Amino acid sequence: MAIRTPICDLLGIEHPIVLGGMMGISDGRLTAAVSAAGALGTLSTATFGAEGTRSEIEKIRSLTDKPYSLNLPIFHPMVPELVNILPECGVKIVTTSAGNPAKFTPALKDAGIIVLHVVSSLRTAIKAASCGVDAVVVEGVESGGKVSREDVPTISLIPQVADAIDIPIIGAGGLADGRGLLAVLALGAQGAQLGTRFLATDESPAHDNWKQVLINAGDADTAIACRQSSPTRMIRNAFFNEMDALDEPGKNAMDFMAIQGEGMARIPGDTDGSKGNYICGTGAGLIRAVKPAGEVVREIMQEAESELARVNAIVA
Amino acid sequence: MAIRTPICDLLGIEHPIVLGGMMGISDGRLTAAVSAAGALGTLSTATFGAEGTRSEIEKIRSLTDKPYSLNLPIFHPMVPELVNILPECGVKIVTTSAGNPAKFTPALKDAGIIVLHVVSSLRTAIKAASCGVDAVVVEGVESGGKVSREDVPTISLIPQVADAIDIPIIGAGGLADGRGLLAVLALGAQGAQLGTRFLATDESPAHDNWKQVLINAGDADTAIACRQSSPTRMIRNAFFNEMDALDEPGKNAMDFMAIQGEGMARIPGDTDGSKGNYICGTGAGLIRAVKPAGEVVREIMQEAESELARVNAIVA
Repeated sequence: MAIRTPICDLLGIEHPIVLGGMMGISDGRLTAAVSAAGALGTLSTATFGAEGTRSEIEKIRSLTDKPYSLNLPIFHPMVPELVNILPECGVKIVTTSAGNPAKFTPALKDAGIIVLHVVSSLRTAIKAASCGVDAVVVEGVESGGKVSREDVPTISLIPQVADAIDIPIIGAGGLADGRGLLAVLALGAQGAQLGTRFLATDESPAHDNWKQVLINAGDADTAIACRQSSPTRMIRNAFFNEMDALDEPGKNAMDFMAIQGEGMARIPGDTDGSKGNYICGTGAGLIRAVKPAGEVVREIMQEAESELARVNAIVA
Repeated sequence: MAIRTPICDLLGIEHPIVLGGMMGISDGRLTAAVSAAGALGTLSTATFGAEGTRSEIEKIRSLTDKPYSLNLPIFHPMVPELVNILPECGVKIVTTSAGNPAKFTPALKDAGIIVLHVVSSLRTAIKAASCGVDAVVVEGVESGGKVSREDVPTISLIPQVADAIDIPIIGAGGLADGRGLLAVLALGAQGAQLGTRFLATDESPAHDNWKQVLINAGDADTAIACRQSSPTRMIRNAFFNEMDALDEPGKNAMDFMAIQGEGMARIPGDTDGSKGNYICGTGAGLIRAVKPAGEVVREIMQEAESELARVNAIVA
């Protein structure tokens, strides 16, 4: 038995699992590790800039010949340049996010590229489908980092999107294991995107203190800071309170760049996990060990398959 | 094909669906309608007081001979009196909530009553299991009304509880259809509790304006007011802002009773849904029509079963 959905054929992958494009984390090495395991790795281009992205792509291609995606945050000034060089780099799949999908989807489709677009509400999902993207990543407010002010949770969002659009859905937000994958399939998705779970892998460039914070995290240890201006999910610690105290209406993501950078810089010396900026989703509570990314992919698939067998066994 | 889990045998029901005990809503008529359809109705005793509960129980017994539960909010002063009269009323199942399960579980178990207990975090689930309750209702922050400050979403909470305790789990929070039921089964639960979906039924005593607000609600139309003192999920409208403006650290649920009552009193005249107090969960976005409660139960079961067939069909 193997869980394989139509989106596997669309993307040329074996397993319906996608690595989230995490700023500072989803580099060439982690992307290649996820792709080599038969899932879809996603490179965070914003981390590297246009030239750096070119060399990360080279790294991916030296490590695996499997498909991978490039995450393009639409608002970023380097995106027009990147869109132009994608064909010569051999990029076949792009995941756009954080902006209007009308802006680059036509150019990407003209270049023969498969376009996934990340949304966090029904409204933006319908918009993305109307722009001609191939699939949407539907991400609930359980996810780590910047989250939508619309505050819609995965379990209610995915079925509403599934009722409204006809293109495939990849579910995201709060997922960390095979039960999460099976749950989003039940809700109407064809696959799952996970970020935080892959942050705590051997290949992830995150500092060991960050990985340890995720292992230690319980169910209630994340929260959303800066709800009035730039909602951001992270570990609830002293840094969280420090950043949240700067929240006020009218501020935007840029206003928190300095403090977030400071919180990141503190991680190497933060042995008790209290003072650093630990971006992560609610799925952190399910992470118990740092493992190779490929092993994470295999375990998620095995668990989803055995859980499906368990659910089938309770059907009379 | 029929989805039937071990908790159906424990509770003596046909379908693993439970009506949430909603203050002012879950009366004898609605409870009986859900139970008569083969699910588990739950009477909100806090709505009726001890003597009123006795007559609501008579009403349930005149309408159906199927099992039902009584919701006892542990903090409520009438609970000791109620616990004493339960055996003579023939009550077989009780759902405790909002307090320490150590307080009444031994007396209820001694009286031969099956005890369910509502929790909203891993910590409280472990505590409830250690107190000897028969099953836990594990409710994510997606649910309507008072929610936990721990702010844990359904999709991450259920698998963590399933890993930690051995008694059955009923999943709750943000569920409104068969996909939600199937998703919580995938996450490790044996059934689903729904409140908001049953609020919009023919038998529900909620005002028609409230039911219409739920039908009109989109994915992003609920939010949590009063996060600093008494977090409460409801429709985001002018009343929400009015109540949220009274939020300050140190206040508690009692401090909002008056304004909430005022918001309830406005519902009959609130034809555009802006000024009333519309308590509901994030599942409201999935509700498209008011129906008989029994039809809701049947549709949820049919959808969960057809969705399971769909998921099985994508397994190679």
